[in-house]
Parts: sequence; C-alpha cells; structure tokens
Amino acid sequence: MRRLHAGRPGFEADFAALLGEKRESAEDVDQTVRGILAAVRERGDAALIDYTKRFDRLDVTAGTLAIGADEIAEAAARVPAAQRDALARAAERIEAYHSRQLPQDFRFVDADGVSLGQRWSAVAAAGIYVPGGTAAYPSSVLMNAIPARIAGVERVVMVVPTPDGRLNPLVLAAAQLAGATEIYRIGGAQAVAALAYGTATIAPVDKIVGPGNAWVAAAKRQVFGTVGIDMIAGPSEILVVADGQNDPAWIAVDLLSQAEHDSAAQSILITDDAGFADRVEAALARELAMLPRREIAADSIARHGAIILVDDLADAPALVDRIAPEHLELAVDDCEALAERIRHAGAIFLGRHTPEAIGDYVAGSNHVLPTARSARFSSGLSVLDFMKRTSIVRCDPASLAAIGPAAVALAEAEGLGAHARSVAIRLNDRPAEKTA
Amino acid sequence: MRRLHAGRPGFEADFAALLGEKRESAEDVDQTVRGILAAVRERGDAALIDYTKRFDRLDVTAGTLAIGADEIAEAAARVPAAQRDALARAAERIEAYHSRQLPQDFRFVDADGVSLGQRWSAVAAAGIYVPGGTAAYPSSVLMNAIPARIAGVERVVMVVPTPDGRLNPLVLAAAQLAGATEIYRIGGAQAVAALAYGTATIAPVDKIVGPGNAWVAAAKRQVFGTVGIDMIAGPSEILVVADGQNDPAWIAVDLLSQAEHDSAAQSILITDDAGFADRVEAALARELAMLPRREIAADSIARHGAIILVDDLADAPALVDRIAPEHLELAVDDCEALAERIRHAGAIFLGRHTPEAIGDYVAGSNHVLPTARSARFSSGLSVLDFMKRTSIVRCDPASLAAIGPAAVALAEAEGLGAHARSVAIRLNDRPAEKTA
Repeated sequence: MRRLHAGRPGFEADFAALLGEKRESAEDVDQTVRGILAAVRERGDAALIDYTKRFDRLDVTAGTLAIGADEIAEAAARVPAAQRDALARAAERIEAYHSRQLPQDFRFVDADGVSLGQRWSAVAAAGIYVPGGTAAYPSSVLMNAIPARIAGVERVVMVVPTPDGRLNPLVLAAAQLAGATEIYRIGGAQAVAALAYGTATIAPVDKIVGPGNAWVAAAKRQVFGTVGIDMIAGPSEILVVADGQNDPAWIAVDLLSQAEHDSAAQSILITDDAGFADRVEAALARELAMLPRREIAADSIARHGAIILVDDLADAPALVDRIAPEHLELAVDDCEALAERIRHAGAIFLGRHTPEAIGDYVAGSNHVLPTARSARFSSGLSVLDFMKRTSIVRCDPASLAAIGPAAVALAEAEGLGAHARSVAIRLNDRPAEKTA
Repeated sequence: MRRLHAGRPGFEADFAALLGEKRESAEDVDQTVRGILAAVRERGDAALIDYTKRFDRLDVTAGTLAIGADEIAEAAARVPAAQRDALARAAERIEAYHSRQLPQDFRFVDADGVSLGQRWSAVAAAGIYVPGGTAAYPSSVLMNAIPARIAGVERVVMVVPTPDGRLNPLVLAAAQLAGATEIYRIGGAQAVAALAYGTATIAPVDKIVGPGNAWVAAAKRQVFGTVGIDMIAGPSEILVVADGQNDPAWIAVDLLSQAEHDSAAQSILITDDAGFADRVEAALARELAMLPRREIAADSIARHGAIILVDDLADAPALVDRIAPEHLELAVDDCEALAERIRHAGAIFLGRHTPEAIGDYVAGSNHVLPTARSARFSSGLSVLDFMKRTSIVRCDPASLAAIGPAAVALAEAEGLGAHARSVAIRLNDRPAEKTA
C-alpha cells in the first residue's frame, strides 16, 4: 500500500495527487441514452417492452410490466427467516433514525406586522431505481424507500431490472417492508425515462433516486429539471483514523469492507504509529486471502489504497477535511473530541467498536452518502430529499405601508416599473405614471 | 390573453398544452463552455485575463482581478441615501427570516444502546455569480449572499462582470452589506471555472449559486460534482388566484410584475368571475401603456399569459398544484384556508395586500425560487443550501452485540464478505473463514 508521511518533503505533492486521483472512467453514453429517453417519451410502453427484450432478454407486455402483489408475496416468502428478521430489524432502525429528520414549519409575525413562514410538504411521487445483477442490494432498497415514506410520499415507485426474468426475493421483501407502492420489472435508461415522462402504464414521478450504472446515471442527469434527482454516486470510500492501540485485523477488514465494493473504491488509513501501519498491512494480506471478493478488493487497495503517517493524531482533522471522505472511522479513545474537530465527512463512525458496515445495514443512519470529496458541499440521503419548502408571506395594509416604500425604492433602482407599481398602487401612490 | 374554462370541453387538452409550453430556447453552448472551462483550468489567471478582455472589453491583470475595498467603499458612497436605506432595510429583514432556517443537530442513545446523531456544518467557501448588464440586481446579491453568511460560510466570493469597466454601485453596496468577503470583476463561464477550479489569484469554492445566462448555466452544469450548484433558474412565473372583489388594476400590475422580467416569463390568473377577468384585461392594457419595459411585458403576456376561469374557487387548488408555480398570490378573503389546500408552490403571497414584488425585496423570504414546475420537488434558496449534514454512529461492545448479527446476516446475503467480517470480528466470531 502506498505510504505518505505528513510533513515530510514531497508530502503535499503526493497528497494532492491522491486527492486528484481519477477513479471513475466516465463512459460516454450520453448519445445512446438520449435516444432511449426520446424513444420512451415517444412510444411509451412499446419502447419499454422493446428495450426490456433487448437488454434484459425478457418478454413483457404492458400488463406484466408491474410485478404483482402475489408475485411479491411469493418471492418474499422464499426469503429465509433469519434474513427476513434481519431486514425487519434494519427497517425498524432506519425508520426510527429518519423520523427524527422531519423538519419543522414556522410562522411568525414580525415587528412590522408582516406574517412570514415556511411550510414543508412531501413530493407526491418518488421513483427508486434498484440495480439488478450483482449490485442488487436489499439494504439500498430500505435506505432509499424508507425516507420517502417517512417524508409522506404517496407513490413510492420502484423499478428493478430482472435480467432473464430472475427476481431477487430479498429485494422484493425489502420493497414490501419499505412500503413501495408500485414495482416495475424494468431497468436502465429506459426505466429512468418511464419514471420521468410516464407511459400509459407507469404514471410519472417527481423525483428519482437510487444508484445505477453509467447509463442510469447519464439518464438521471438528462431528465434533471423535468424531475428532481439525488446525487450521482461515485465509488465507495473509507478513511480510518486509528492509533496504535487497535487490533490490526479489525482495521484491515474495515479497509477491505469498502475495497470489496469496486476496484475504483478507495481505502485510506491515517495513523501516528508506523509499526501499527506495518501490522495492518500484514493483516490485510491475511484477510484478503479469505475474502470471497478478494480480487476486486486487492485491486482497489493496490490502485487507490494509501496509508498516511502523521507525527501526531492532532494533525489528522486537517487532512480528513481535505479528503472529505464518504465514511470516516475514528478508532481512538477520545473519538468524540476528534470528531468535534472534523467538518467534512458524510458519516462518522466513532470508537473502536463501530465498523463502518454497521452503518450500511442496521445503525439506522442512511448509507447513501456523498463520495468524491462532495461531503464538502453535500449530504447523505435524508427525509428532506423527498420534501420541499414553500415560503409564506402575508401583509395587511399597515404592514405593507411599513415595508412597501423600501420595495418601491429598490424596484425603481432596478428599473422594474411593474414591480414598483404593484406595491405602490396598494399604498395609494402612482409612481409608475411618473416613470412611464 | 388566452382564456381557458375549467370543466368545459377541450379544457384538459388546452391546460396540458399550457403546462407543456416550451418557454426557453436552450442555446447549445456546451462545446464553447467546455473549451472555456478547460482553458481556465489549464492557464488560470492568464485565461481569465484573456476572456475578460475579449468578452467584457476590459484590461485586467492578476493584481486587478479583485475589486478592492477602497473601490467598493467609493462606489457604495455614490449610492443615493434612499436606496442605501432601502437596501439596509431589506438586508435586515432577509437576515431575520433566514436566521430561523438554521437547522438543529440531534444526538440520542436508543434502546439498543447505539448512539446516533446528525450534525450540520457550513460549506467553507461559496461563490455567488452576479450577472452584469441589465440583469444586475442588487436584491439578488442580498438573496444569495445573506443565507451563505448566516449558514456560517467563511469565504463568500462574489464574481460580477463589469463590461467596459462599468461597475454597478448598488450591486457593490449590496455585496458589502451582505458580507461578501471577496469580489472579482469577472463573469461568464470563465468566472464559474475560476470559482470551481481556482487560479493563482482566486482560491476555489465548494458551492456556486446565482443566476446567469446560457453560458453561465451550462458552466454550472459542467462543474457540478467538482462543486455543488444551486438549481438552474428558468424564466419567472406568477399565478394569481383572485375572486371578483379585487381591484382589477392591482391584479393586472401583479401579472405584469413578472411579465416585465422576460418575454419568456409566464403570468396566469385563475378567477371564478368572467366579468372580473374582462376588467383585468382592460386594466392590463392601460397599465402596459405606462410601463418602462412595456414591450417585454406585452410580449410575455401575449405569448405565455392565460386566464383560467373556474366555476368555483374551490377548484383552484388542484389546478395550482398541477402548475406548481414559482410565485402564487391568493387574493381572496379566506386566503389561509385556500393556502392549506395547496401543496406545490415556491412561495405563497396571502391576501389582497401582498403583491408578489414585496417578496422580491423586503418581505425577508428568499426570491430565488423553483421555476418550470419544479416546485413539485424543489425549494427556494435557503440557509440549508450552504450547509451539509454528517451522520454520527457510535457503538460500544454491548450495542454492537445487540445489532451486529442482523448486519452480518444482511452483508452475507448481499455477498459482501468483508462487510460481514468487519462486524463479526468484533463479536469474536469468524464467519468469513467459513464463507471463504
């Protein structure tokens, strides 16, 4: 694993290179996606049926685009009890955490007599994209759908491709548990198009969330504006800040837990103990050998992994903020004090007994988190992503008289005569005649 | 003005056409903008200097890119006292409203002993784009910069083109009042590039907000991901719901107050009184004749204006929600009850004495609001746009033992061995050896 030593000569250049490292090869699928969106927009269900036959090798009709309640119940019944219980436990904890995110409205009358407020309301319909194949994660279904339901979204519309007709029972069980109200067996850019524009069978939604491949990401970017979208998720990242008192195997496995997602994932360790760094590297080799996804994980560690040595862990927060990691573990005794000094991170896992993976499933917080340094300006998925605010303003004649003249002065300074006059006319003044 | 009558034959088709109306001609400037971004990224200040000479006919050096404190003070001093006072009054009210938007952190320990929380923090640096020329609105400077400062943003970096070297004193006065910490005399895609990537003179920011022309909008879309951006603002809209008891001139001027922004703006009146609709149309003609920007306003009304007659104002909320207007006026007696029945609107102006323009300047709420039906899924600019959330999770051995097994079960079901093992290894179990 590459090693950097903070404060040593060359560190700044190496650290800047690490931060600037390109981990995603952006496939240019924009043109193809544009064609698919146009086809679905124009031909609706017929286009969906064609693309599903072509890309998923599946014959569907308008009548079988939806996965029926009986099919869902049957699939869910095939899930082993232990998994079903684990899913239920996760759902319950995710609900409890996200319920605390429900925002407060406010309304007040100020000293000028103006009544002001803001009111939150839910998006009416949300589309949840669920990838098929190896990246079909039931936990992601919970993480995307539960916040929508808590926000008050009436239609929670899931799309999931079923290549060759293969349904993932645990994904359907998760959808049922999370409260999806409609599920369609479609995927790719065509599913995003159906959600954004609607077809005869699928009513359009207002917001689309969920991870997907390059085609799905490009489609989401293109329909943005017609509907809202969540962030475009990049490869996973973990940053572990650990002193020498940790079990090296624990820290090694934590680093691997993100590396196993994707060769483009990035795992970084910051420590003040060079001997501990050596022990973690040795443990990495041992743990890698036992991993089912060892090739992916080894590739990620080799290509993007790094150990950063610091003379003092007090130097860590400044580096952490520059990395702005998706996931941050603080495996030190005084983890709370260290966390206080950190500003840019998607999620912080405190102490030696909080592996990042606990947050992927059952902690309750969301596992959809900002990647690629975007924790500097964005946040994990939350109930707020499925809500929007309306401002409220109410004047009566007295309060309009109190604040109106300032509005007239500014509107006139900006050369907007009707703006000025719409206020002035209610003040029994007629300045627009003067300026005309 | 075109008229639709809800419930009459043909209404659905006409209403759908109104909703689907294309009001913006999207110029395809993507390629040009891509070149400008690459040049600034590569050549930094030198590229900025070249583009500023070319597009703004202005000679600058790296040393004069920034507008100095003395220049700002001098310009601000040239602003007439009445305008300066109006600006100060507006700033004060915008501050008071937005201060209420500061979100609450939370932290709690649940029944399983897991400590969970979420913590809000400010973006470190925000870039505010301020257009030059006719659309240089000091009110927009306040509306974009004040929420950033209240959020706690340290660097509030304003860019404003000064074609032929012309500074707008009121814009600089607004910047000073709003607490901009740096101001640069650059604009266009090159200014967005400088904010996103940084140059020797201008340190990069984390988020870019503010309105701009097609080049600026395209540049914002292209740098999204490197930095955060606000929504891409479309042409203004106003929807007025009014009964027959209003002064037709007041309502006519309100409709014109958005129409005067842009030929692509849209003004719609919903009323239950056909006679009142006639009186508003007559007043529109009279008011238009007095307007400085009468050509733009007349064009907007002719191209995109509409009057929708309803048999009963109780039918209005369903239509309002389908339009999801940027600005909504409810000029009726029981405006509060009517507002309760509406879900999708950027801002609601209640009663007969609350012209929309009061919200553009001094009400205190933000005038950057969702256009083009996006109030279905997005909100006006707020303090939250300059903040982001970090999730907090902390387990101890007992709480990890309580919730860990469910995480292990789900990780194994998803085929993620290191995820499972990172939890299991802390439970003194070694399941990865079994699955390897």
